[in-house]
Amino acid sequence: MSDSISHRKLTVETEESFGLDAAFVAEVATTLRAGNRARVKELVSGLHYADMADLLERLDSEDRKLLVETIRDEFNADVLPELAEVVRDEVMAALGFEDFAAALAELDSDDAVYVSSKLSAEERAQVAARMPQASRMLIEQGLSYAESSAGRLMQREFVAVPNYWTVGETIDYMRAVQTLPEKFYAVFVVDPRNRPQGMVELSRLLRSKRPERMKDLFDRDVEPVALDMDREDVAFLFKQRNLVSVPVVDKSGRLVGQITIDDIVDVIEEEAQEDILKMAGVSNTEVSSLYNAIIRTANSRFPWLFINLLTAFLASAVVGMFEESIAKLAALAVLMPIVAGMGGNAGTQTLATAVRALATRELDSSNALRITGKELFVGMINGLLFAAIVGVITYVWFDDIFLAIAIGVAMFVNLTVAGLSGIVIPLMLAKFNLDPAASGGVFLTTVTDVVGFFTFLGLAAAIVL
Amino acid sequence: MSDSISHRKLTVETEESFGLDAAFVAEVATTLRAGNRARVKELVSGLHYADMADLLERLDSEDRKLLVETIRDEFNADVLPELAEVVRDEVMAALGFEDFAAALAELDSDDAVYVSSKLSAEERAQVAARMPQASRMLIEQGLSYAESSAGRLMQREFVAVPNYWTVGETIDYMRAVQTLPEKFYAVFVVDPRNRPQGMVELSRLLRSKRPERMKDLFDRDVEPVALDMDREDVAFLFKQRNLVSVPVVDKSGRLVGQITIDDIVDVIEEEAQEDILKMAGVSNTEVSSLYNAIIRTANSRFPWLFINLLTAFLASAVVGMFEESIAKLAALAVLMPIVAGMGGNAGTQTLATAVRALATRELDSSNALRITGKELFVGMINGLLFAAIVGVITYVWFDDIFLAIAIGVAMFVNLTVAGLSGIVIPLMLAKFNLDPAASGGVFLTTVTDVVGFFTFLGLAAAIVL
Repeated sequence: MSDSISHRKLTVETEESFGLDAAFVAEVATTLRAGNRARVKELVSGLHYADMADLLERLDSEDRKLLVETIRDEFNADVLPELAEVVRDEVMAALGFEDFAAALAELDSDDAVYVSSKLSAEERAQVAARMPQASRMLIEQGLSYAESSAGRLMQREFVAVPNYWTVGETIDYMRAVQTLPEKFYAVFVVDPRNRPQGMVELSRLLRSKRPERMKDLFDRDVEPVALDMDREDVAFLFKQRNLVSVPVVDKSGRLVGQITIDDIVDVIEEEAQEDILKMAGVSNTEVSSLYNAIIRTANSRFPWLFINLLTAFLASAVVGMFEESIAKLAALAVLMPIVAGMGGNAGTQTLATAVRALATRELDSSNALRITGKELFVGMINGLLFAAIVGVITYVWFDDIFLAIAIGVAMFVNLTVAGLSGIVIPLMLAKFNLDPAASGGVFLTTVTDVVGFFTFLGLAAAIVL
Repeated sequence: MSDSISHRKLTVETEESFGLDAAFVAEVATTLRAGNRARVKELVSGLHYADMADLLERLDSEDRKLLVETIRDEFNADVLPELAEVVRDEVMAALGFEDFAAALAELDSDDAVYVSSKLSAEERAQVAARMPQASRMLIEQGLSYAESSAGRLMQREFVAVPNYWTVGETIDYMRAVQTLPEKFYAVFVVDPRNRPQGMVELSRLLRSKRPERMKDLFDRDVEPVALDMDREDVAFLFKQRNLVSVPVVDKSGRLVGQITIDDIVDVIEEEAQEDILKMAGVSNTEVSSLYNAIIRTANSRFPWLFINLLTAFLASAVVGMFEESIAKLAALAVLMPIVAGMGGNAGTQTLATAVRALATRELDSSNALRITGKELFVGMINGLLFAAIVGVITYVWFDDIFLAIAIGVAMFVNLTVAGLSGIVIPLMLAKFNLDPAASGGVFLTTVTDVVGFFTFLGLAAAIVL
């Protein structure tokens, strides 16, 4: 039985290649509603905590509550950090503050801090009051660091040994001590004042002979991370150095925690995710919001649409300047969206490339000028090509050589401007510490709309009419 | 001296928070051109290989060649996989096939396969002819697996022990053997037929007493990965299970390699990166293309723009149906881009959310209907709000109540359609195994343009004129 369940829980090798099997979710839901608690327990026993989190997310509110009540006694705390916020709130309500606090106290400190950070002040107080003193203090301290800082990411559990110890002493210590973290990848070597001097990856430790000294083994390339370092910088360091863990130090350089690769994987995915959503005008808070309520979602999308409306009216005002020309030749109205739209598309290509290159730090002041020059030329080349294509189509369609010339020239100008804006706008925004992913698109399409409409309609008014 | 250099190489803690310091790059370039080889060697000595790769990328072609020649004797093979493809080609030219092949033979097999895969067939043959037999065969085998498969990602170097061994025997073995991989995070436990039964993370191994048996320690939760599993599925498994390494098996279930978290970090970043670029219409090949030539870049962006041109003409044709109406009332031309543009923006918000939710597998058949319903309502709510806003502005601007009604109704219809299309289009594409990130946007804006123009101009023609 347990074998067939463990096969059902992850279906990455099947054609659909999704996480949890939909049929399994449906079976759990049906069994819950039938009130067969024993069968439900049997079904979900042996589920990995991440799959349990998925299962809780997929069920609807009613079934979710039933499931939590059914598994209350065996509830695995590791499920909590994996849940979407709204779902976790419901799970907390179903568990009650007492059991929720007990679960939180079981977690590694980084996970406990993360979960607490998502609670309201009132909920946090309720939960804290039910936690052991030690766990509560660790969480409070964790929450005192800025949200995107290394301090928030780090866990307080780590292994550190004095630099004069041998490999043998280190291994004996690890075998003897009961309070080691659940998983760790390196041992930090500290001086008498508890300042990290380096770290020894476990594979290195295991390869070394017992009498060797730790201070002769450690990797000097690893610089400790400060508590207030930005998490994107920490992630960059991990990627750049292919690290699996890094020591975190306070202002006086003393070792206070470690950050491990599993937290960084989440950071990398979230940051890339944020960029794609921000470019599309979806706010941050929506990142994990598949389960957010309708009103909240509509609300979070409104501001971006409103800003776009303002820029759309700006573009309209440009068209409005040529109302008379359009009244004389309605073909202008037929063709004008093409010029503006193509500019927007070409600019967005450049913008997306620039946003990611800035995020991965491939683009900076040392090559900004060179890349800008390149994008300008790319814009001009495609501008020429599309000027020719659109010019010919327009000539065939409307049989008007001047109209064809006007749209061709406008297309060239707009694609050139688009290429240039697509790189200059994000560079400028980054220079002023603004987020190019969040606001680059609005500036860009404003430029390409205004330039597109103005050059095409202006030229047409001058040479066609 | 070496201290000041190591501080200069990574500037993540400074305000600019970029990778390599621009001033350092400039100093290396100047020194190279001055022909002061000794000083150049001094400057770059102690640079981490990833920073050396960055440095090579930032220099221009001439200086790059000079630098490679200067450091030829101390060239670190680990630099190669970190380089952008065009830069690596130049480095290979400067090193010559002989030295390049020697460097390749030093790499872990996964890195050597990756670098080889980017060479042309002719270059690959030239390099292979200069490599030791064993390395050449490992690379050829690696290249025989599909590009996005687990086989391509895996390294052939791993540590496996029989299940009847004790912890003590395992540690003694690791101390004695010289051919262990440079870094590893777990020991695989195999049966007599070399099939993995589980793995023991090193932290677990170190905590355990010498007489304990490996078969009593291993984590049964870890299922081996097949050679042909898609790399996105492998990445999903790592994230879902918080893994650091995983065994890879052939068709008969025998252990042939391992995949480690550092490769997965790259996959996760690349996949998220690809999605953002694909949504903006930048092709895959351009992902690492900041250093690509102008013509190649222009070329790679052309197809997407061309497809968009076709859909733009389709939208134009819809506008063309109402040429007479526009000739009578040019205000229609002024207002029509607003309706179409807002629909495109609203739809893109939903599309981006859906694309990422599909990628992270939060969205699948088990919740597709629920999320679609939600997005429909979100579209309707914002549709109502913007119908009101745009209606009022239009009434004030043009003093025409029927025009205001026409644009309001069109806005509501288009934002509702946009919300629905933004989720249904990616779901449909995924259903037919098409990439929603790559083609979703084209379908979406075609729908919102056509619906936007048609409803607004059609309504206006019916009730205003």
